[in-house]
Amino acid sequence: MEEVRQDGGAKDGIKRSSATSVGYESELQLRVRYQETDQMGVVYHGNYFTYFEMGRTELLREATGASYRHVEELDVMMVVSEARCQYLKPARYDDLLTLKTRVARITGASLSHEYELYRDDVLLAKGATTLVCVNKEGRIVPVPDWIRNFNKGAVPGNSE
Amino acid sequence: MEEVRQDGGAKDGIKRSSATSVGYESELQLRVRYQETDQMGVVYHGNYFTYFEMGRTELLREATGASYRHVEELDVMMVVSEARCQYLKPARYDDLLTLKTRVARITGASLSHEYELYRDDVLLAKGATTLVCVNKEGRIVPVPDWIRNFNKGAVPGNSE
Amino acid sequence: MEEVRQDGGAKDGIKRSSATSVGYESELQLRVRYQETDQMGVVYHGNYFTYFEMGRTELLREATGASYRHVEELDVMMVVSEARCQYLKPARYDDLLTLKTRVARITGASLSHEYELYRDDVLLAKGATTLVCVNKEGRIVPVPDWIRNFNKGAVPGNSE
Amino acid sequence: MEEVRQDGGAKDGIKRSSATSVGYESELQLRVRYQETDQMGVVYHGNYFTYFEMGRTELLREATGASYRHVEELDVMMVVSEARCQYLKPARYDDLLTLKTRVARITGASLSHEYELYRDDVLLAKGATTLVCVNKEGRIVPVPDWIRNFNKGAVPGNSE
Repeated sequence: MEEVRQDGGAKDGIKRSSATSVGYESELQLRVRYQETDQMGVVYHGNYFTYFEMGRTELLREATGASYRHVEELDVMMVVSEARCQYLKPARYDDLLTLKTRVARITGASLSHEYELYRDDVLLAKGATTLVCVNKEGRIVPVPDWIRNFNKGAVPGNSE
Repeated sequence: MEEVRQDGGAKDGIKRSSATSVGYESELQLRVRYQETDQMGVVYHGNYFTYFEMGRTELLREATGASYRHVEELDVMMVVSEARCQYLKPARYDDLLTLKTRVARITGASLSHEYELYRDDVLLAKGATTLVCVNKEGRIVPVPDWIRNFNKGAVPGNSE
Repeated sequence: MEEVRQDGGAKDGIKRSSATSVGYESELQLRVRYQETDQMGVVYHGNYFTYFEMGRTELLREATGASYRHVEELDVMMVVSEARCQYLKPARYDDLLTLKTRVARITGASLSHEYELYRDDVLLAKGATTLVCVNKEGRIVPVPDWIRNFNKGAVPGNSE
Repeated sequence: MEEVRQDGGAKDGIKRSSATSVGYESELQLRVRYQETDQMGVVYHGNYFTYFEMGRTELLREATGASYRHVEELDVMMVVSEARCQYLKPARYDDLLTLKTRVARITGASLSHEYELYRDDVLLAKGATTLVCVNKEGRIVPVPDWIRNFNKGAVPGNSE
């Protein structure tokens, strides 16, 4: 994305020296559904945020082996506090798209991702979200360590 | 709808002699959103079930003064066990539609509704759903009396 | 349901001296649908962009008497080029929300709106979008004058 | 994600003697998105119809090599005239589901599919849809031969 891709992609199997998961990037392929189009003949702009959600989910699974479902079972909910998207070219029905998702920033209680959506080599959209960790009472809690560091060994009680 | 409309519509202000809410009918107006269309230029067929959900919600509110949110707060969830729709003519973006919702049948633990969707006097679609009452553990429970009879006085703890 | 309340113009009640529609504001009430919630028990963040679409549509209708459907019939499509939202407090099922939509900026070919979503007096979310006018070939075209100036008399061929 | 597993035809492995595609079955795997859940913590019932749409699309692609997008480019639209679903057990966030789609019936201008949705070996839902072929003027037209017979060689102008 905008910044240099760090060594965090884990695609080479080399453990990142960095203490955090910032820079970790993963890719997802998705097929545009008819339901996602609107009468302009393109993907409705609001649906890109669903794609981004899928990107975050698969990044977490790839990096930690755990599902976001597991995060919620541990009584942490990651609430979207900010979301934005720039639409460069339309995505269309049945397009096979590639979504690149990257961990952009981590603070005490928040996690920011950046997204790029491609059809072949054409960049269609760029987006970003920030998630805040809260417990079931809605109180802000720290980003769990195993998410902060993408340490598979440290996922509590994960049996997946 | 298909059967004769009973005296239960309450539009005349006369209390139904029937012991149940079967036959109760209410009307809702709704405006088609751009998001609901697909690239055929019509409302995506799956979205009619969202309209039907709105019809059930407003019928309950009109008949009892209580929201379906209140039903869930009383630890009853009304789970859709069956849904169907016949599409006669397309609904389009920005159409102002009229949805007629009617309680069609009540059994021990289930509640069936029928729906008719109109643009002006043109019938666009007909549908039906069946809901089953379950508690938070997923066990089937009886339809609450105040829903069975649409008895406003009997809504437990309703403060709306 | 989903009625539009008239606001009659700029926030401060002062008639805009500018020849453009910048500053025009309108209000919309909307009821949260069950379908719009997610398993966190709140409105899914992507759905706010559908609310914003409704706000733009009703602002245009209120200001010009014309529907956005009419705009497309005139061979102008207003494509979303940018969208963002800040989520402050969650909206919940069955909430009756007030959406304030304001024309924030107009350039040669683009139109920007800002949005505030309230439950009673509590601000739940703030958003913004930019639309670019294109014709059916996808070429960028100027914002039509009747939209730039909200001049009801100048809406071409409008019969609504 | 969302890969299509080949099934290669009729359920029993016997090549259909019929000249039509009736009985052709295909399988699709799909991952439940967070956006698809509702506050009951399960997939919103209306979203199953989107899954069914995906099943039809992948069945057509698998059987003919052509996308439904190609069908529309040939000026045939397949409009849903009827849809129904029976919900047996809830699907949940992040579930990896298997959808079996089968061509159930073909008439002069219509095509009916049946669907079964599984999580592992557990049947979650059964559905059915009927599509009617119309041209861009909305007039009913025959089911194209290459769809009726799933004859890959006969797909007009298909370059995929």
